[in-house]
Amino acid sequence: MSIVVMKFGGSSVANPERIRRVARRVGEAQDEGHQVVVIVSAMGDTTDDLIMLSRELSARPSRREMDMLLSTGEQQSIALLAIALHEYGYKAISLTGLQAGYNTDGTYAVSRICNIDSSRVRKELDEGNIVVVAGFQGLSPNGDITTLGRGGSDTSAVAMAIELQADMCEIYTDVDGVYTADPRLVKSALKLNTISYDEMLEMAAMGAGVLHPRSVELAKQYGMTLHVRTSFDHRLGTIVQEVTDMNGELEKEMVVAGVAHDMSVLRATLFNVPDQPGLASTVFGRLAQDKVNVDMIIQGSKTSDDKQNLSFISARTDADKIEQALGEMVAGGLGEKFELDDSIAKVSVVGAGMISRPGVAAKTFEVISSLGINIDMISTSEIKISCIVPEADAAKAVRALHEAFLG
Amino acid sequence: MSIVVMKFGGSSVANPERIRRVARRVGEAQDEGHQVVVIVSAMGDTTDDLIMLSRELSARPSRREMDMLLSTGEQQSIALLAIALHEYGYKAISLTGLQAGYNTDGTYAVSRICNIDSSRVRKELDEGNIVVVAGFQGLSPNGDITTLGRGGSDTSAVAMAIELQADMCEIYTDVDGVYTADPRLVKSALKLNTISYDEMLEMAAMGAGVLHPRSVELAKQYGMTLHVRTSFDHRLGTIVQEVTDMNGELEKEMVVAGVAHDMSVLRATLFNVPDQPGLASTVFGRLAQDKVNVDMIIQGSKTSDDKQNLSFISARTDADKIEQALGEMVAGGLGEKFELDDSIAKVSVVGAGMISRPGVAAKTFEVISSLGINIDMISTSEIKISCIVPEADAAKAVRALHEAFLG
Repeated sequence: MSIVVMKFGGSSVANPERIRRVARRVGEAQDEGHQVVVIVSAMGDTTDDLIMLSRELSARPSRREMDMLLSTGEQQSIALLAIALHEYGYKAISLTGLQAGYNTDGTYAVSRICNIDSSRVRKELDEGNIVVVAGFQGLSPNGDITTLGRGGSDTSAVAMAIELQADMCEIYTDVDGVYTADPRLVKSALKLNTISYDEMLEMAAMGAGVLHPRSVELAKQYGMTLHVRTSFDHRLGTIVQEVTDMNGELEKEMVVAGVAHDMSVLRATLFNVPDQPGLASTVFGRLAQDKVNVDMIIQGSKTSDDKQNLSFISARTDADKIEQALGEMVAGGLGEKFELDDSIAKVSVVGAGMISRPGVAAKTFEVISSLGINIDMISTSEIKISCIVPEADAAKAVRALHEAFLG
Repeated sequence: MSIVVMKFGGSSVANPERIRRVARRVGEAQDEGHQVVVIVSAMGDTTDDLIMLSRELSARPSRREMDMLLSTGEQQSIALLAIALHEYGYKAISLTGLQAGYNTDGTYAVSRICNIDSSRVRKELDEGNIVVVAGFQGLSPNGDITTLGRGGSDTSAVAMAIELQADMCEIYTDVDGVYTADPRLVKSALKLNTISYDEMLEMAAMGAGVLHPRSVELAKQYGMTLHVRTSFDHRLGTIVQEVTDMNGELEKEMVVAGVAHDMSVLRATLFNVPDQPGLASTVFGRLAQDKVNVDMIIQGSKTSDDKQNLSFISARTDADKIEQALGEMVAGGLGEKFELDDSIAKVSVVGAGMISRPGVAAKTFEVISSLGINIDMISTSEIKISCIVPEADAAKAVRALHEAFLG
């Protein structure tokens, strides 16, 4: 019997009415003859509410205790969804991350999944149950609850789909697929029927958290097909898979798959650091230790013969950790001062086809410049060109680039 | 080093301010040189809110899923209390029921604790931690979360105190001890400095859930001293222990320790059941299977030569289960019909001294009768006389009995 893994985010289970809708949707999948595993996030604002509660007690609460606290959100969702499924006459059972067999590396707040012992999940499936699993959480080697950090629930779903050799991992969101640009910014944006893993990785930041890069990477690694779709109706969404067959018309025409933007970034700058070997490894080694992901880096804008500034782009959510790390470096004599700037945004042109079309980069810079927007940093890969621009200009840049490449 | 187990109920941790107060109180106990284990309930209305949420999805939600859902309440409290303790500079770690080693018999919603594997708790204590443990929950033999039902958190605390051979189990509530009657009903009620386990068992229903009989039974069985006190100030409360030394003045004077009442009972009646051997065992065997506790029973009010009515007193919270069980009995031909009446209350006169004073029962009935109140059922033990009266008359009866015996 084929296995389908379905993942529903927090807004899909935000209240009893929505939980019922998810239950009907999940039940239909079993009616169609699939064995069904459902991964759910915490209800709506539960996680934010719990974070606020903890902040009333401490500005810097222990990560272990935050994992203990936040993991209750998913545990509530799975119980409620199982109850709703029973009410529609389906056999269903909820499992926490621990019960579902997620073993993590034990890092609090940002754990990675090491492996899944799916024996309990398989047993419950074989007994005819719809298995409702808490996303975002797992068990550390020492028996503690750890959460998976950003993109955790998507990653839970993809990992379970891989472990169970599922036919498909369906990711239900409040948008109906992946678009050539954020439809809220660009009215003429089109929904993509398919997209490659690499393109999806680059587009991930587009829209309201459609799919976290981490889960896409995992799916790519094991060739798990993802289907990003809405829980509000039955339309097909966007299939994310390896593009092996290049005879599609889409590929021929679309050098550029989409224009993405990311307003959640900040630029950190360390001023007047010594221009000496090993600097980057010192700075970024320390940040890696703190699990801070660094995106673009600019090193080399000399301020004197032996001094330079060092800038990099990271997520705004890591601001506290970056401030701490850079503060300690400056206190230790590495650099004169530091600065965090969150008034910037990243705009990216993405497409697997651009590798053979060298003009894309030039056209991108031209479009942005023609709007009088200053490009602060540039980063390119085989399938993407990203520019850092002022946040206030980002929407304008996205619209112009979409018009130029996809209009 | 001496070990103290402290238990705080839901109202003591209802909001961040109260959690901070509990943290200071707990920290003081460690400062005084004790190893401290804290058992906490879910914050304030959390459990009720979760029950309401589940009722929006199902009138009769699965007990397994309700345990999954409700156990999140305590998990949130322990994390928040640990965070508050850290903020005051204390080493502290939270543990779920599972992590703290509570193994239950696996019955959902009304589990009993089979044993506690306290190795993790001891390890954390030895590392200098205040160990914050989720009450009310444990692990079933098949790896599921089960809750302990009414009085569960008190029982969690007493069981842990016994397992750790603690010096004392302190139960913090929003009243400052055990009174000779509910002070809300009887202005002249007095706080008792000490009370025996047996008296406490009979008085348990007095006041706002001061201590659940189940936890008192467990404490009595192992001779664990309990201290019922308030978390609002440092006054001593009431010590519950075996009374071995009978030289106290209190004992000499006080034949009656207190007057208790219980407004949470119902009377169930099965009409016109066959008057034949084995009836009681059929009816109460079935109710026992459903884990319904039955208090008083009246069997024998004949309605014809071979028929009789059968009445018993139970908790109102078991109404659904009783309705189900009696309904099936009537459908199966056992009795003509059944009725549940929750307009009644139980009033009890309690005192270890009354065993040697036969006049107490007569005086009790006389006081109630003189108020023109009809006594529906009577039950006596060596240390208590209980009368079922109309709920509307219960407060009046309590005041009059307190005046007669303790005024």
